[in-house]
Amino acid sequence: MATLGAHIVHLAPGELDLAAPFAGAFAQQNGYWHAGAIASLADSANGYAAYTLAPPASDILAVEFKINLLAPARGEQFLACGRVIRPGRTLTVCQAEVFADSSSAEAPPSRTLIAIMSSTLIIRPAP
Amino acid sequence: MATLGAHIVHLAPGELDLAAPFAGAFAQQNGYWHAGAIASLADSANGYAAYTLAPPASDILAVEFKINLLAPARGEQFLACGRVIRPGRTLTVCQAEVFADSSSAEAPPSRTLIAIMSSTLIIRPAP
Amino acid sequence: MATLGAHIVHLAPGELDLAAPFAGAFAQQNGYWHAGAIASLADSANGYAAYTLAPPASDILAVEFKINLLAPARGEQFLACGRVIRPGRTLTVCQAEVFADSSSAEAPPSRTLIAIMSSTLIIRPAP
Amino acid sequence: MATLGAHIVHLAPGELDLAAPFAGAFAQQNGYWHAGAIASLADSANGYAAYTLAPPASDILAVEFKINLLAPARGEQFLACGRVIRPGRTLTVCQAEVFADSSSAEAPPSRTLIAIMSSTLIIRPAP
Repeated sequence: MATLGAHIVHLAPGELDLAAPFAGAFAQQNGYWHAGAIASLADSANGYAAYTLAPPASDILAVEFKINLLAPARGEQFLACGRVIRPGRTLTVCQAEVFADSSSAEAPPSRTLIAIMSSTLIIRPAP
Repeated sequence: MATLGAHIVHLAPGELDLAAPFAGAFAQQNGYWHAGAIASLADSANGYAAYTLAPPASDILAVEFKINLLAPARGEQFLACGRVIRPGRTLTVCQAEVFADSSSAEAPPSRTLIAIMSSTLIIRPAP
Repeated sequence: MATLGAHIVHLAPGELDLAAPFAGAFAQQNGYWHAGAIASLADSANGYAAYTLAPPASDILAVEFKINLLAPARGEQFLACGRVIRPGRTLTVCQAEVFADSSSAEAPPSRTLIAIMSSTLIIRPAP
Repeated sequence: MATLGAHIVHLAPGELDLAAPFAGAFAQQNGYWHAGAIASLADSANGYAAYTLAPPASDILAVEFKINLLAPARGEQFLACGRVIRPGRTLTVCQAEVFADSSSAEAPPSRTLIAIMSSTLIIRPAP
């Protein structure tokens, strides 16, 4: 998360929002954020959301995730909102929505839904 | 890809393999590569594999992908092998396998399958 | 849908809910509904939801879908609620939630979220 | 599987192929097999493939699956080939390929890859 410059902007049981600024190092050929950077942010939001409901001294690992990319990832900031859909003792399922925030001199600030992710995470005792 | 230090190690029609060294900047809490870094490498391998079969002056964008993480991503190098499963005029479907290569003084070099990805990509005229 | 005994219980632009009774023909080894029957119902709800926003004389086909099965599919009735997340001229993305309704002499009626699905659909002129 | 008329045509450790005849009861609006029927066949092939490697008296449940639909499901028979990609004590990951077989007086018999599925399955002691 340090590599992406991400920080937590919302935290509640089963909920975690991560924000990260656009950075050219993670852009793809058109100057938008790479799908991999978006997926990293959403995967982390889902992982931390699961962590808020896990027993102490647990380790959380993603088993699988799927992302639908809905719109080009252009903007000054990205926001990934992870939510626990079903907590479990062994497996937890989360969903994330990723938004792009943009502003310019000509237009009011806008927030666009750019991706949705569903994840399965496994909870284990920390090593 | 420059950010991940990835480079092409195999290229053929409908096939592309990318290799990247382990880098601490993309590690998660246990010192393994973050799922997001693995997904980025696999997504790029699938995107470039699709590109090998696309018309000139095309742009390729991932519409969605799903990754199953099979084993901890530990090793000195990661290899993502992207393959076109079904080429199309509008949509192309690819699959990637991601391997971790590791070696040590005590054991022979080993290669472990750590993830599989399926992707849908859309092909458009380049902007 | 006739095979599953499904019928529409809610219809609005971008929204469609399908209900179907439990039927033994679609049960798996434990007497719960088979994952394939749940997926069929959710896939149809997403397909019809996309159809509500498509131009006249369009054909809608699922390109891919992913389902997370959250709880055993036991109950007297299943309800799949399909929603368009992002409409498009070529591709539309939908999400569905599937619920199981059950009741008994000993307990009040209950509704349980048993599955979530995300789908990509392609819109084409009808043949 | 009885509902779909499916039967086992190949069985080996970690491998299971299921065949099913086309049946109008599972057709969608264009006369092709419904995506839900294809998903049911592939999900069952993956489940049984996982079962071949599970301990005695185990129960296998799909946690999630994702299917990419590659071509229209037209033909006289469908064949789903399930393979264990990574067996595990708790979670097993499988992939399936689904083929359509068709023949006619005018053309030689053909086999077309129409779908690929990846699945996560959980293994539990049988109830």
